[in-house]
Amino acid sequence: MLSRNECVALDQHDPLAPLRNEFLLPEGLIYLDGNSLGVTPKASVSRARQLVQHEWAANLIQSWNKAGWFDLPTRLGDKLAPLIGANAGEVVVTDSTSINLFKALAGALRIQSLEPATAQRKVIVTERSNFPSDIYIAQGLSQWLNRGYQLRLVDSPEELHEAIDSDTTVVMLTHVNYRSAHMLDLQGVTAHAHRQGALIIWDLAHSAGAVPVELNLANADFAVGCTYKYLNGGPGSPAFIWVAPRHQAHFFHPLSGWWGHAAPFAMDPSYQAGSGIKRALCGTQPVISLALVECGLDIFSRTDMGAIRKKSLALTDLFIDLVETRCAMHPLKLATPREHHLRGSHVSVEHPDGYAVMQSLIERGVIGDYREPHIMRFGFTPLYLRFSDVWDAVDTLFDILDSSAYQSGQARVAVT
Amino acid sequence: MLSRNECVALDQHDPLAPLRNEFLLPEGLIYLDGNSLGVTPKASVSRARQLVQHEWAANLIQSWNKAGWFDLPTRLGDKLAPLIGANAGEVVVTDSTSINLFKALAGALRIQSLEPATAQRKVIVTERSNFPSDIYIAQGLSQWLNRGYQLRLVDSPEELHEAIDSDTTVVMLTHVNYRSAHMLDLQGVTAHAHRQGALIIWDLAHSAGAVPVELNLANADFAVGCTYKYLNGGPGSPAFIWVAPRHQAHFFHPLSGWWGHAAPFAMDPSYQAGSGIKRALCGTQPVISLALVECGLDIFSRTDMGAIRKKSLALTDLFIDLVETRCAMHPLKLATPREHHLRGSHVSVEHPDGYAVMQSLIERGVIGDYREPHIMRFGFTPLYLRFSDVWDAVDTLFDILDSSAYQSGQARVAVT
Repeated sequence: MLSRNECVALDQHDPLAPLRNEFLLPEGLIYLDGNSLGVTPKASVSRARQLVQHEWAANLIQSWNKAGWFDLPTRLGDKLAPLIGANAGEVVVTDSTSINLFKALAGALRIQSLEPATAQRKVIVTERSNFPSDIYIAQGLSQWLNRGYQLRLVDSPEELHEAIDSDTTVVMLTHVNYRSAHMLDLQGVTAHAHRQGALIIWDLAHSAGAVPVELNLANADFAVGCTYKYLNGGPGSPAFIWVAPRHQAHFFHPLSGWWGHAAPFAMDPSYQAGSGIKRALCGTQPVISLALVECGLDIFSRTDMGAIRKKSLALTDLFIDLVETRCAMHPLKLATPREHHLRGSHVSVEHPDGYAVMQSLIERGVIGDYREPHIMRFGFTPLYLRFSDVWDAVDTLFDILDSSAYQSGQARVAVT
Repeated sequence: MLSRNECVALDQHDPLAPLRNEFLLPEGLIYLDGNSLGVTPKASVSRARQLVQHEWAANLIQSWNKAGWFDLPTRLGDKLAPLIGANAGEVVVTDSTSINLFKALAGALRIQSLEPATAQRKVIVTERSNFPSDIYIAQGLSQWLNRGYQLRLVDSPEELHEAIDSDTTVVMLTHVNYRSAHMLDLQGVTAHAHRQGALIIWDLAHSAGAVPVELNLANADFAVGCTYKYLNGGPGSPAFIWVAPRHQAHFFHPLSGWWGHAAPFAMDPSYQAGSGIKRALCGTQPVISLALVECGLDIFSRTDMGAIRKKSLALTDLFIDLVETRCAMHPLKLATPREHHLRGSHVSVEHPDGYAVMQSLIERGVIGDYREPHIMRFGFTPLYLRFSDVWDAVDTLFDILDSSAYQSGQARVAVT
């Protein structure tokens, strides 16, 4: 077990340590919830001021062209692409994750329905423990299409292999589980889905900026994800969608708004899908929230996902080790895989009074969150978190548990 | 024809004149494009700072509850409701206009398909001159449902009456045309659609905050619209959707994301639509762009749509009169109805060199915009525009035309 001094020493030799200075971090707070809402890049403060006072107030309508507002979805998509193993022209930042998943699933089902070998397949495979909104979107789309699509909800990652079979048209999975942080084998599951003749959509909400993702290397088909967690884009900032280059010309979805049109300003009364990834766009985007995504992305250009992953595993290893050693006498149960290759960048710990313990932690400035049932989630974001923060967080947890300084209670907190 | 002095006198007696002080208006600019992108409320500057530095940077995840982020769609919807003749609990501000139209159209088609009297109807009526994205959405949804729906594109408002017949399932119209400013009879067309057994969806993009709208009085069924034009919500700020109370319990759409779930944090793997208008929500919203909508809405609470309409008509009357009198020797043609009851809050004027003339106007600080073919659009926003501004704008137009101080050219500008 490391001492606090040893943690401080790790911080002193941490190659990512300088990046902490790029963020506004509230004094005295240990923020272990960057997997839910990322912190604020310092650059976002001046960028927001520039957007409101200069681009909007002073330059008004001209900013659509002069400030590049209209190109934000593709420009930000190009910047985000390297973080998920994609190339320029394959990603746009737009709309919400749920809406982008709707587009991807609609597009994937359509491609499969036009292929004689797969046209009769009706099964969409996902995990029962997937983020519920993903399941709701699949339910909604299936019901509306009314062509007999059915959802196969798999109860554990181990059952996935068998569940993806010759009836499967589309597999729709979240790479890192929002609750357990269990990480699926993106390349292996993709290859298995393809061997079975299925297409695969990855939700990277808890992966982008958190763990290395190689969409092209894995030969994946579609992906969606979130920019307000590990990418620090701002509260509810628009999501992203990636379409493999080989599918782009065949990618159609029903949200065919004017931003996806080949010539939006021709005012043609007939929809013609734009070329490439642009056809994933629909309507006018929320420019201020969208533009702030860039401040978060720019910080990633100063490091790489290999370095981030290395520190992420060190932080989560340290947290698990300290919790299990120091709090061994308390009824805590690790709900996150111990194996590196199965672990994302947060750690979930069960406790019978999980909600109350988390409330006490928050009161003492250690911010994690709570998920039913009994789960305390702690996110570890290498860009701004220190090894000594982990030590201090566990020290606070230990103190709360040891002094029983928490009260049972029930209520729910916050968002994803 | 009024003199400039008479216009200045009108400004001095204008009861809305004090509201101009609520906005940041660039020195020396006459902004006649508030129908495309509204100007910046002064309050938006401090609100944006508060959002980024206080709610996001300092309070982080806790702001979802403590700063009311999660309730923004309904809270802003309640504030917007009186501007369109709706009540609290009937409107949410969320997503884009195109996506909200998709929800409304899907919901309306479903209701009609479950009613024996209308289940066999397959015709969706709209205008060929409707904003193209609205038509694209109807095309997209129809193709995907694959149940024989067809679009009937009407060539002029006069043909609407006949086009809405006993084959019509849903009528989908924009109240004020984005190009001509032609305003449809919302109450009359709604009544006619209902007599024919059809449901009606109104797009209020160029109406909300511009002209009085009485959705409940007209007994309309669904409405969508935009907050970044006359409502001054900020570039691309999220749109709104209204569902008549009588339809809310039967309103279902395929974008069934977690924000529309009855219990979003129960993490139930099966979708259960929330009660009332909340089921129109889908995914996590872009909080900063969304929250800024409130700054624009708050200004409307200091006046009412009657006063706004009175000044709007006075401004557009003055503009038309000055243009037709002072520029009579130039090939200008009014493309906006002269009759008050047919006119929205912008004026469109055709000129063979419309694009070049508009570029010259913009260079001289008179900001309108251009729409193919040949149309110069001038928006009149009573909250911040002066009668003397109208006089000065026409004076500049006169000078440009009279001195032929423009060059033919071709290109396109800006966004709706």
